[in-house]
Amino acid sequence: MDSKDKRNASCGSSAIVHNPHLDALKDDILYHFSLGTGTHDLRAIFGDVKFVCVGGSPWRMKSFIEYIAAELGMEDPKSEYPNICAGTDRYAMYKVGPVLSVSHGMGIPSIAIMLHELIKLLYHANCTDVTVIRIGTSGGIELEPGTVVVTKQSVDATFQPKFEQVILGKTVVRSTDLDQSLAEELLQCSKELNQFQTVVGNTMCTLDFYEGQARLDGAFCSYTEKDKQDYLRKASEAGVCNIEMESSVFAAMCKLSGLRAAVVCVTLLDRLKGDQLSSCHEVLQNYQQRPQILVGYYIKRQLKTKAGVSQV
Amino acid sequence: MDSKDKRNASCGSSAIVHNPHLDALKDDILYHFSLGTGTHDLRAIFGDVKFVCVGGSPWRMKSFIEYIAAELGMEDPKSEYPNICAGTDRYAMYKVGPVLSVSHGMGIPSIAIMLHELIKLLYHANCTDVTVIRIGTSGGIELEPGTVVVTKQSVDATFQPKFEQVILGKTVVRSTDLDQSLAEELLQCSKELNQFQTVVGNTMCTLDFYEGQARLDGAFCSYTEKDKQDYLRKASEAGVCNIEMESSVFAAMCKLSGLRAAVVCVTLLDRLKGDQLSSCHEVLQNYQQRPQILVGYYIKRQLKTKAGVSQV
Repeated sequence: MDSKDKRNASCGSSAIVHNPHLDALKDDILYHFSLGTGTHDLRAIFGDVKFVCVGGSPWRMKSFIEYIAAELGMEDPKSEYPNICAGTDRYAMYKVGPVLSVSHGMGIPSIAIMLHELIKLLYHANCTDVTVIRIGTSGGIELEPGTVVVTKQSVDATFQPKFEQVILGKTVVRSTDLDQSLAEELLQCSKELNQFQTVVGNTMCTLDFYEGQARLDGAFCSYTEKDKQDYLRKASEAGVCNIEMESSVFAAMCKLSGLRAAVVCVTLLDRLKGDQLSSCHEVLQNYQQRPQILVGYYIKRQLKTKAGVSQV
Repeated sequence: MDSKDKRNASCGSSAIVHNPHLDALKDDILYHFSLGTGTHDLRAIFGDVKFVCVGGSPWRMKSFIEYIAAELGMEDPKSEYPNICAGTDRYAMYKVGPVLSVSHGMGIPSIAIMLHELIKLLYHANCTDVTVIRIGTSGGIELEPGTVVVTKQSVDATFQPKFEQVILGKTVVRSTDLDQSLAEELLQCSKELNQFQTVVGNTMCTLDFYEGQARLDGAFCSYTEKDKQDYLRKASEAGVCNIEMESSVFAAMCKLSGLRAAVVCVTLLDRLKGDQLSSCHEVLQNYQQRPQILVGYYIKRQLKTKAGVSQV
């Protein structure tokens, strides 16, 4: 029985890699994590991971691990949470108990590199029943700033729920479906928390922050305020509640790997009313904590439920 | 005479913004730099900038500013080079004399956000005659690892020299032409330096590092080794010397802004022979210094020539 068969025989569902070439590699170097199968015992380090939270900013992902450690009563007495990827500045990674926190930078290509290596990491570490949640920031449409959006479907700039992956110069279309039951559970958690408004809706994922999101304040802008308003209203009519830059490839890759996944982003402004992030630092900081609080609550509840089941 | 007219009356050529809405902004917040016209005197801080070097890694861009400071005899006696963007973790920025060094993360969306804000920064600071050079890493095709490639044209995954920008859901095609005389000058500098091999050739810019570059070692791979070899050989026949993830939008945006621009990337491996970056740390570090050395030499020479002209 080889390692792959063993994996299938275990009771939980594993992260799936779809790559027949991987087994032929003597070592697998996860270059952008500065980790590898030849240099690290990935099973020992990561084997117990059940929740992976990812977000653009390394600072935010560090603050998330400190927050979740306190929530789970797993604080390090010295408050030291070493960056597991300290050998590189591409991404930052932190771990407390079953929770992994990883930064992914900005945009589809940056998060895609991270996800390729994360999925291989979970596979090599033989992790089972993993839930992956992106906690991020976004621009809202017709929502009070500070509202949290749990993504129903990630759509492209033409409001279609698809992600186009170019392979050997040819475009392959992938589904951006996310786990609907997980989205509902997160919405329920927000109701229980009762600290801020949360909605479930579509999220538009773009390749650009300025022209790609109809902003009027980039270095280039060839359209009018009316063109912008028309475009954002059309998006709103298509069910788009917020706009960010990573959800489509995140949804597509998690689905392909059989990972339960959700996208939870706070809206920092209402794009119908402006483009610039001019709220004061404290207000933006407060907003950015909301996805952390919601996902922290969800993880805590899941772990409690599981502990309860184990005791029975 | 308003500030714009003054700008046009100055003798050098300015960074051009194509956005009639910008003048209506009371303050312009460069959010991802944590800088702004209302909070910073951009002209005082950046007005003397003549060279902007950009690269993916914040560590590398800090090491570049230390290197260029030593080369130009402008070292800080305390070796302190503060990060001008210390208020954010999105990008890092360093400055020594007329040289600005800025990180841009990985991928087209990440560098595009940086470039929008950089172009506005140069515009607000009234900088003139600015040259922008990307110094990066790449995968090579049929080149000895460590070879430096100065980009002639940036091409997409179908080997076409174009960049597709989505605006209001519609695709606009932009030229990826780079400054050919600058590329030739950089090649001449490499000959004078005589420390490593440098070539001028096309650079393929992709949206993905694994499937998008025909790697066999991602989490997903649906093609064979032969498919990969065929694709890379076709790229080579189209003049592609190396593959990276930022050059197309970099070329397009610099061209639109009237900025003289070049892309100088070292090849870390020959993609026909492998996919993983398995060379030892020291070798990869040595390779990564080559674009810095070449661009440092170029900047030093330009400043000397200019000083000579001023003396005459």
